[in-house]
Amino acid sequence: MQTTHRQMPMSVHDIMHAKSVAVIGASDDLSKWGGRAFGILCRHDVSTEIYPVNPKAASVMGVKAYASIDQCPGPVDIAMILVPAPAIAETVQACAQAGVGCAIVITSGFAESGQPGQALEQEMAKQARLAGMRIIGPNCIGILNAQTNMLASTAVALPVIDRAPAGHIGFASQSGALMGSMLARGIDVGAGFSSLMSLGNQCDVDINECFEYLIEDPLTKVICLYVEALKDASRFSELLQLARQRNKPVVVCKSGRSQAGQRAVQSHTASLAGGYAAFAATCRAHGAHLVTNVSDMLDVAMLLERNCDMSGKGVAVFSGSGGAGALLVDALDEAGFQIPTLSDSTIESLKSVLPSSNLQIPIDFGTLLPLREPHPSGQDPWEVAISLTMQDPAVAAGLVMLTSQPTMDKVAQAVQRAGLKTNKPLLYIHVAGSIGEPARAVMKQTGYGFVESQTDGIAVLQSLYQRSLMPASEPLVAPTKPVGALDLPMGYLSEPLARQLLESAGIAMSPWRSVQTSEQACQAHEQFGVPCVVKAVSDTLVHKSDAGAVKLNIGDRQQMIQACQEIEQNVRRAGHTLQGYLISPMCRADAELILGIQRDPEFGPMVLLGAGGTLVELMRDVQMAPAPVGKAQALAMIEQLRCLPLLQGWRANKPADLQQLADLIVATSQLAVSDAALTELDINPLMLVDGQFMGVDARAVREGSN
Amino acid sequence: MQTTHRQMPMSVHDIMHAKSVAVIGASDDLSKWGGRAFGILCRHDVSTEIYPVNPKAASVMGVKAYASIDQCPGPVDIAMILVPAPAIAETVQACAQAGVGCAIVITSGFAESGQPGQALEQEMAKQARLAGMRIIGPNCIGILNAQTNMLASTAVALPVIDRAPAGHIGFASQSGALMGSMLARGIDVGAGFSSLMSLGNQCDVDINECFEYLIEDPLTKVICLYVEALKDASRFSELLQLARQRNKPVVVCKSGRSQAGQRAVQSHTASLAGGYAAFAATCRAHGAHLVTNVSDMLDVAMLLERNCDMSGKGVAVFSGSGGAGALLVDALDEAGFQIPTLSDSTIESLKSVLPSSNLQIPIDFGTLLPLREPHPSGQDPWEVAISLTMQDPAVAAGLVMLTSQPTMDKVAQAVQRAGLKTNKPLLYIHVAGSIGEPARAVMKQTGYGFVESQTDGIAVLQSLYQRSLMPASEPLVAPTKPVGALDLPMGYLSEPLARQLLESAGIAMSPWRSVQTSEQACQAHEQFGVPCVVKAVSDTLVHKSDAGAVKLNIGDRQQMIQACQEIEQNVRRAGHTLQGYLISPMCRADAELILGIQRDPEFGPMVLLGAGGTLVELMRDVQMAPAPVGKAQALAMIEQLRCLPLLQGWRANKPADLQQLADLIVATSQLAVSDAALTELDINPLMLVDGQFMGVDARAVREGSN
Repeated sequence: MQTTHRQMPMSVHDIMHAKSVAVIGASDDLSKWGGRAFGILCRHDVSTEIYPVNPKAASVMGVKAYASIDQCPGPVDIAMILVPAPAIAETVQACAQAGVGCAIVITSGFAESGQPGQALEQEMAKQARLAGMRIIGPNCIGILNAQTNMLASTAVALPVIDRAPAGHIGFASQSGALMGSMLARGIDVGAGFSSLMSLGNQCDVDINECFEYLIEDPLTKVICLYVEALKDASRFSELLQLARQRNKPVVVCKSGRSQAGQRAVQSHTASLAGGYAAFAATCRAHGAHLVTNVSDMLDVAMLLERNCDMSGKGVAVFSGSGGAGALLVDALDEAGFQIPTLSDSTIESLKSVLPSSNLQIPIDFGTLLPLREPHPSGQDPWEVAISLTMQDPAVAAGLVMLTSQPTMDKVAQAVQRAGLKTNKPLLYIHVAGSIGEPARAVMKQTGYGFVESQTDGIAVLQSLYQRSLMPASEPLVAPTKPVGALDLPMGYLSEPLARQLLESAGIAMSPWRSVQTSEQACQAHEQFGVPCVVKAVSDTLVHKSDAGAVKLNIGDRQQMIQACQEIEQNVRRAGHTLQGYLISPMCRADAELILGIQRDPEFGPMVLLGAGGTLVELMRDVQMAPAPVGKAQALAMIEQLRCLPLLQGWRANKPADLQQLADLIVATSQLAVSDAALTELDINPLMLVDGQFMGVDARAVREGSN
Repeated sequence: MQTTHRQMPMSVHDIMHAKSVAVIGASDDLSKWGGRAFGILCRHDVSTEIYPVNPKAASVMGVKAYASIDQCPGPVDIAMILVPAPAIAETVQACAQAGVGCAIVITSGFAESGQPGQALEQEMAKQARLAGMRIIGPNCIGILNAQTNMLASTAVALPVIDRAPAGHIGFASQSGALMGSMLARGIDVGAGFSSLMSLGNQCDVDINECFEYLIEDPLTKVICLYVEALKDASRFSELLQLARQRNKPVVVCKSGRSQAGQRAVQSHTASLAGGYAAFAATCRAHGAHLVTNVSDMLDVAMLLERNCDMSGKGVAVFSGSGGAGALLVDALDEAGFQIPTLSDSTIESLKSVLPSSNLQIPIDFGTLLPLREPHPSGQDPWEVAISLTMQDPAVAAGLVMLTSQPTMDKVAQAVQRAGLKTNKPLLYIHVAGSIGEPARAVMKQTGYGFVESQTDGIAVLQSLYQRSLMPASEPLVAPTKPVGALDLPMGYLSEPLARQLLESAGIAMSPWRSVQTSEQACQAHEQFGVPCVVKAVSDTLVHKSDAGAVKLNIGDRQQMIQACQEIEQNVRRAGHTLQGYLISPMCRADAELILGIQRDPEFGPMVLLGAGGTLVELMRDVQMAPAPVGKAQALAMIEQLRCLPLLQGWRANKPADLQQLADLIVATSQLAVSDAALTELDINPLMLVDGQFMGVDARAVREGSN
C-alpha cells in the first residue's frame, strides 16, 4: 500500500470547506451512527463529493460504495470514522496512508474511558501526525458548515431539517451534546449559524485553532465557545485580544467552575480543567461575555449578532399581565437591576397609546388604548409603546413577557419590529406554553428568537450587563520605576524587604522603621510620637500574628521594651530567627481591603482586590484581573466590589480616593509583570485612613532562578 | 321588577359547584369575550345549566338565549358578566335583583384604572352585598372546576382542549393572566388540577376565602396561591396553620417583593402590597413553600402531589452529555447545593450498569453498558442507574438533564418509572428543544412533568430545600417570667429601662450600673475593676453614639471624670436632658449579632436575628420569624444566618453556645407577644464573648395605650 502524503496539513479553514467527505462505516441502516451520518450528508450536501466506505456493500443509499478508503476515486479531504473503537487504530492508519486530509473520529471510548483508551488515542494521534493528517475528536459529533451546507455531523437535529440554519454565529464546542443542544435550540428559535464544530477529546485540532478560524472567517459575526480545558491558555488569551481587535464579540461558557464540575470534566473528556477564577478574569479583561449554559449563550449571541449593547442597569418591563409584570420587576430587582423611572417627555409621548393610569414601568399591554385612528407613526400600539419606552435614556434593556392572550402573534410581530429598531437588547419571554405557538412561529420565522422563562431572560441581561462594566481596551503604561533593581533574594521576603519592593513600585505604605534592638524600637516609637505597633522581622516567620510576634497599641517606653522581649521569646519558641523589629504607627481604618498578586499556572500573573478583615472569606468579595491592569480596568474592579459602599463615605466617613486606589492596583499589576520571580504578594490589610489607602502589612514570595 | 333574595350568600364551595351559569354578553362571535366564554362553557360543560343572555339574539350557538337575566327559566347560581365597563353597574344591579348567587365580573376598568373605576367598583360591591350576591372579580378571567368540568373562565387555553386537566392541584390567583399561564403550562406538562380561581380586584370574594375552600376540598391535595395583597393578613396566617394541620402543602408566590414590584401591584389591582419580609417569614414559619414565579410553583406542586420531600442538599445529576452534566454540577454548586459522594455499596451496585470509569455523580448515560442479558431487576439500564443512585443516603434529590439523543422517549420512560419509586424529588430537565417532542409527550402523558431549563430545575429544588430547613410545627412554651409587671412607661425607653425589661424576660445583658453623678460613675468603674464604657442615660436621646454620648475604654478615674463631663456637654448641646450615666465593662466580641423585635402592620410582631457590626447592611444577613418563636425554629433561624461560620469557632475562637442563642431568640419573641405595647426592640450589639451571647446595648419603644 502506497502512502500518500499531503503537502501541508489541512487548516481548520480547509476542513470547514472540504471538497470531499468519505464516511467509513456508512450503511443503509439509519439506526446506526454510520447510517445516520451518511444519511445526513446525502440529504443535505450541495457540492461536496461523498464516498460511502463499506466493505460489505456495493452501494449505500443508492451511492456507489467503496470497500476501503484507499479505493475512493478522488482525494478525500475528510473521512468521518464511525466504526467501533477496537477497529479505530487500523482505520485511522488506513486513512493516514490514503492521504486523507482530516479524520473526524466520532467514536468514543478513548482517553475519557481510562488508561487503555488514552494509550489508543495517543497512538492514533501520533500516526496521523506522522502522515500529516489532522484529527477532529475522538468522542465528538463532527462539524458542520451551515453556509455551505456541509454537514459532517451526527447531530440528532440534522435528519429532521431541510437545510442547516445559516447565519453568522460560529460555535466551537468541546462537548458534542452541547453542540447538538445549541443547534436544536437554534432551529427552534430561528437562529442562524456560520459553523458548528465539536472537538471531543481534542487529540489534534483544539478549541484555539477553531477560535482562530472563527475570528478569520468573514461569515462569522459572533463567536461562541464551550470550553472544558485549554491546551494553551496564553494562546487563548491572545485570541481573545485578537477577536476584540476585529470587533468580533465572543461568548464563552466553561464547565469545571466548581471542584465537583472539574472532576466531572476530567472524567468526561480526560482533560484537567484549570481554575475558573483566572479563566473568567482573563475573558472579562479582554471583553468576552461569560454565560453558564449554552441556551443563554445562544440568546446572548443572537442579541450581539444584531449589535445590541447594554450600557446601564435600567430594564424596562412590558407585559400583557399586571401580575406577570410585577413578578418580573421583583425578579429584576432581586438580580440587581433597576426599574427605571421614565422621563417626562417619554411619559408625555406614551399618552398617545396608554391611559394616564399606566405610564410607568412595568408597561401593561392590557391597558393599551385602541387606536381608532391610525397612530401618526403608522405603527400598532404595542410597537409604539415599546419603541417610545426603549428610547428613554434611563432604559438600557427591555423584557417583554407574554402570558397566553388571544393576539399573541401580533404582539410578537410588534416586539420584533420594535426590537430591530433599537440596539438596546429587547428580549421576548414567551410564557404561554404551546398555546402560544403562533407567537413562537413569528419569532422563529423572523430569526428574532425568544426565551421561555423569566429566569433565562434575566440571565441573558446579566451577561450583557457584566460585560458592559468592563472598560474598552486601553493602552497600558510602562512601569514608571525600574522594578527589580532592588536585587531581592528568592523565597519568602521579610516585611522590610516586601515594603521596600512595594515602595519602589510607588505603592503607598504606612510609615515604618526597621530596627535591631528594643532600645532602637523605643527611639523609633518616640520619633513617631503616637501609639505604635511592633512586629518581628524574620525571613522565615510567615504568620507573625499567630506566633505572637505582633504587639499592637504600644503607648510608652516600658510597654515597648516588654513587647520586644515577648516577641523575641515567642519567635525563638516557634523555632525562628529574629532579625529585628519593625515599628509602625497604629492607625484606625475606615475600611480594610486586600490587594495582591497570584500567579495562575495557566494564565500567568493575576491581580486580586478584595474586601479585607474578618468577613472577607464570608463575603468572597474579590475581583481578579490579569496583569498588567490599566487604570480604567482598575476602576472597574473597584466599582464591582460588593463592599464598595464602605469606601464611599460609609457612616459619615470621608469618601475614599478611588483614583488613588486604582493607581495602586495598576502599580501592583506592573510589579507582577516586571518581576517574573514574584509568585505571591499580599498587601493585607490595605487600610483606608482619612480617604487615602496605604498598605499596613505585606507578604511576598519570589521563586525561580534569579 | 321583583327582587329575589338568596337565603344565604353562596360560599366558595357553592360557587365552585354551581348548578347553573348564565353568560351575560354571550354571542356567536368567538372573537369577543362573551362569545369565547359561552363557547368554552358549551364545549366543556357536562352537568351545569347554561343560559346565554343577549337581548339581541334568540339563540346563541344553538342554545335558546334570554333577553335579560331575570328571564332565565331557573335559578342562576353564577352570572358571568362580560359587558363593557360602562354597562356593568346596571348589569350587576339586574343580577342582584334577579337573585343571582354570584356574579363573575370579567370586565376590567375598575379600581385598577384609577379613582372613577374605584368608585364604580365600590358601588357594585355594595349593591351585591345588600342583595346577598357574591362577586368574583372584577378584572379577572373567572373560575374553573376541573373535576366537574365547570369552566366559567375565558382562559385562552380552554378553547383548544377537550376537557379540563383534572387532578389535585388547587390554585387561587389574584392575577387572571397568571392563572391562564398556570393552566397552559399544566396542559403542556400533564399536570392535573382540582380548581383554578382568578380573583382580580377581590371586591368581594378574596384569596383567603378561596384558600379556606381549597383546604376543605377533599379533591385538592396541594394548594397554590398567587398573592398580590391580602385583605386580612392574620386570617391568612391562621389558614396557613390550618393547612399544615391538615397536611396540605401550600405553595405561595407573591409579587410586590421589591419596591418597584409593590408599585406595579398597586397600579395593577389597586391593592397596596405589604412588605414581603414579614409575609415570607410568616409563610415559612408555617411550613409553606415560597416560589418566585408560577412556573416554578407548578413544578413544586407536582412534586408535592406525589409526596416528594427533600431532606438534605445533596443533588444527584444524570445526563446523556458529559458537558451538560458538568455545567449542571457547576450551577448546583453555585446555588449552594452539594454534589454527593456515593457510598461504596451504591458504587458496587452501579457496576451492573456502568463502567468503572463512571461511577460518580454526574452519572453519564452516554456510558451505560448495554444489558445483553436482562438486568436481574427486569428494568432497563437507565432506570437501574437512576434508582440505585437515588437510594443512596447522600442523595436528597435528582436532576436528569437530557440534550437531544436518539432514544429520548425511552429515557423519559425510565426517568418517570424511577421517579415514581422514590419520594425524593427527581426532576426531568428537557433541553432537547422540539426534536425532543417524543420525550415531552411521554412526560406529559404520564403526568410526570418536566422543566425546560436547568435554572428552573435548580429553582424548584431551592424552594423544596428552603422549606426543609424549617422545623415541624412545635408547641410554644409560655413565657417563664411575667413580663409587663415592670410597669414601663410609653415612648422611647432609656437604656436602663430597656435593660430591665430584657433582664426581666431572662435575656442575658452585659453587667451594668446606672448612676447619677461622675463620682458614682468612678465608683462603679472601680467596682468593675476593668476598663469600662460610659454612656449617657436619657429618655429622649436615641442615637447616643452620634451625639458623642458614649465613651469607650475608660481606664482610670481621671478619664472617667473627663468622659462624664464631655458626655454632659454633648448631651446638653444636642438639646437633650441627661438623667445620669450607665457604666458597663468593655468587652471584646468574637462576633456581633443584632436581635430585635419589629411589629409588622399586617402580620404583627416579628423577631429579627442578623449579623451585626459594620457589614450588616452590606450583607443583608437577617432572619425573621413571627413571634412567638419555638426553640427549633430559633435554631433554624441561626442555621440560616450567612455569618454562621463566625459563630462556629472562626479563626480559633471558642464556638458559640447556639442553644443559648436560641433561648435568647425564644425569650425575645415571648417579650414581643406578652407586651403588646412594645413596638420596637433592638439588642444591638448582641456580643459573642467567650462562647456566650450577651446584649451590650438596647433600644426599645413602647406605643399605644398603657
